[in-house]
Amino acid sequence: MSEALNPPHAPLTYDQSGVQYDLIDPIKVAAQRAAAATATQLLAHGMQEVGASRGESAYVVDAGPFYLASIVECLGSKALVADEMHRLTGRSYYGAIAQDTIAMAVNDLITVGATPLVVQAYWAAGGSDWFSDTERAHALVAGWKQACETCGVAWGGGETPALAGIVEAGRIDLAASCTGIVQPKERLSLGDTLQAGDAIIFLAASGIHANGLSLARKLAERLPAGYLTRLPSGATYGEALLTPTPLYPPATEALARAGILPCYSANITGHGWRKLLRHPADLAYRIDHVPPVPEVLAFVCQQAGLDTEEAYGTFNMGAGFALFLRAADADRAVAVLRAAGQQAWRAGEVLPGPKRLDVPSIGLSFGADALQLR
Amino acid sequence: MSEALNPPHAPLTYDQSGVQYDLIDPIKVAAQRAAAATATQLLAHGMQEVGASRGESAYVVDAGPFYLASIVECLGSKALVADEMHRLTGRSYYGAIAQDTIAMAVNDLITVGATPLVVQAYWAAGGSDWFSDTERAHALVAGWKQACETCGVAWGGGETPALAGIVEAGRIDLAASCTGIVQPKERLSLGDTLQAGDAIIFLAASGIHANGLSLARKLAERLPAGYLTRLPSGATYGEALLTPTPLYPPATEALARAGILPCYSANITGHGWRKLLRHPADLAYRIDHVPPVPEVLAFVCQQAGLDTEEAYGTFNMGAGFALFLRAADADRAVAVLRAAGQQAWRAGEVLPGPKRLDVPSIGLSFGADALQLR
Repeated sequence: MSEALNPPHAPLTYDQSGVQYDLIDPIKVAAQRAAAATATQLLAHGMQEVGASRGESAYVVDAGPFYLASIVECLGSKALVADEMHRLTGRSYYGAIAQDTIAMAVNDLITVGATPLVVQAYWAAGGSDWFSDTERAHALVAGWKQACETCGVAWGGGETPALAGIVEAGRIDLAASCTGIVQPKERLSLGDTLQAGDAIIFLAASGIHANGLSLARKLAERLPAGYLTRLPSGATYGEALLTPTPLYPPATEALARAGILPCYSANITGHGWRKLLRHPADLAYRIDHVPPVPEVLAFVCQQAGLDTEEAYGTFNMGAGFALFLRAADADRAVAVLRAAGQQAWRAGEVLPGPKRLDVPSIGLSFGADALQLR
Repeated sequence: MSEALNPPHAPLTYDQSGVQYDLIDPIKVAAQRAAAATATQLLAHGMQEVGASRGESAYVVDAGPFYLASIVECLGSKALVADEMHRLTGRSYYGAIAQDTIAMAVNDLITVGATPLVVQAYWAAGGSDWFSDTERAHALVAGWKQACETCGVAWGGGETPALAGIVEAGRIDLAASCTGIVQPKERLSLGDTLQAGDAIIFLAASGIHANGLSLARKLAERLPAGYLTRLPSGATYGEALLTPTPLYPPATEALARAGILPCYSANITGHGWRKLLRHPADLAYRIDHVPPVPEVLAFVCQQAGLDTEEAYGTFNMGAGFALFLRAADADRAVAVLRAAGQQAWRAGEVLPGPKRLDVPSIGLSFGADALQLR
């Protein structure tokens, strides 16, 4: 019996893993309010914001012939796992985390119905010497390029600052900005037509993606073999964590080409399935098909002693992205997605409120207050 | 005689200040090549890149009715000066560095003729507790908002990750992405019509802006009173360094409203006046009007023992931004800029090649090989 199956220690909660949202959130709210007050600046340029995009995953401006969407997203602490696995095994996972970084940006951008067009790279290193490991640096470049090509975006350029004194020595802070357009404008999917009776489709996750890594890293400290702990499949914990996040733009573009327009989307990142409650309307959501849980997530949840609510409230648990669309389109949408190489399931439906999420088969419920993003 | 006027120690060169471009540059070149290869991705969306924007300060895509421009830029180590001055004086300079961060992005974006529309904030802190100093955090929010309003851009949103283990404890990595449009398309200013006889206009700098801070910080370590060293004007060295970078979009928008279209622009950032050699054409540039040198730059150059070539090859030396336009438009352009509140000078002219920059009044010359950006 491998150490992976040892009984868990005391449960490891997300709060213990070091990120204190109660400290960040008041400033986030102040920033959101200040940002909202700047919307009128667009009027002088003959444009205006799409107000409903405030608080959604990407910001949308009505540019006349089409909508313009933009975003900046960061990879976060997954880079530390790549560093540690590089140290332990000599293998480079920098191409994989390049894909993760782009996924963080493009998978958010497409929630509004946008086609990503241009990605900019932001690679802030702890010193010039980060780039002197040319194998690592070239893996980052190659992975970034490949992810851009998978998404059909142009890599516009970016910044590669050496920030000694700000970024820790030997570390890298990876982020991506993305600009896209919503064209035709009917593709805008901010959820204004979301209604009871709509279907929910899940796109398959590949693993932990780039959220919940603080907890996963904390767990590594507890495991006798750390990141080299073997999962039942034989993969190490570290390499399983570093499976790159899927790039969902080809899936949403395939739907658009088939004339299927989701009315809303949710990228399942931080807060796990609570993100299904993102839409402000007083609607309920019932999930009847629970996707298979990626091995690494099952392992983390078991080892950290997370109950179902903690697990699904923190991780994607196999559902990386949710599409909300008319029930009449649902089966065809799944067929289109699968034909495009994207594993997808018709997972549930939208019901009249009050707002809540129910997943009867696993006894999971989240109320309206489970997610506070606005 | 204040310590500020002590004879300089051994000269402090930029190479000694810790940024080693020879380590970063090969990867930059590899990244630029990989990025260029992704341009064809746009064709599937009915768009195409403007190839001449590769290697320029912002990336431009032909979106049909207008051009789309985008960029990501970071503040760099100026945040460390704000941290130190906060510690020494209790005063917050976080609003000022918010403006600097936005300036880094928008002042690059406008070089291609774009009107900035949307800014996204990227504030990566060393831990959640960075935001628990609410005075500091609110100053950052307020400064960011005000800078957006000055530029006429909407603050779309952003990321405020807590990146313990990547960003140093107590530090913040500030960056901004910006999306804009070039409209009408005639405003595109990538220099394809730049020619001998054109005039060069300088827009006034406010101080060091956000480039050359590594050297300026190194110098602070040498000064007996460090950042609290008094300059002749009475300002401390630290507060003079933290004078925020001007936001030039109102100036370029005023020119556009007056029907004056520069054919090329250069944001004078890293590499100082060598940036005037940015355009690939085999043209020479002669500067006859040398703007007054901001006090803090005169101080840095004197104390660090920089000669004229090092000073003008590193810092803006009073010229924050250069516009290249038809000589017939030059005097009116200066009048329009001044009427818009922007100090500006008709500074020189474009001459037939070979490529070089000459500033006869200060005995300065840079050859074609002084700037290697591509």
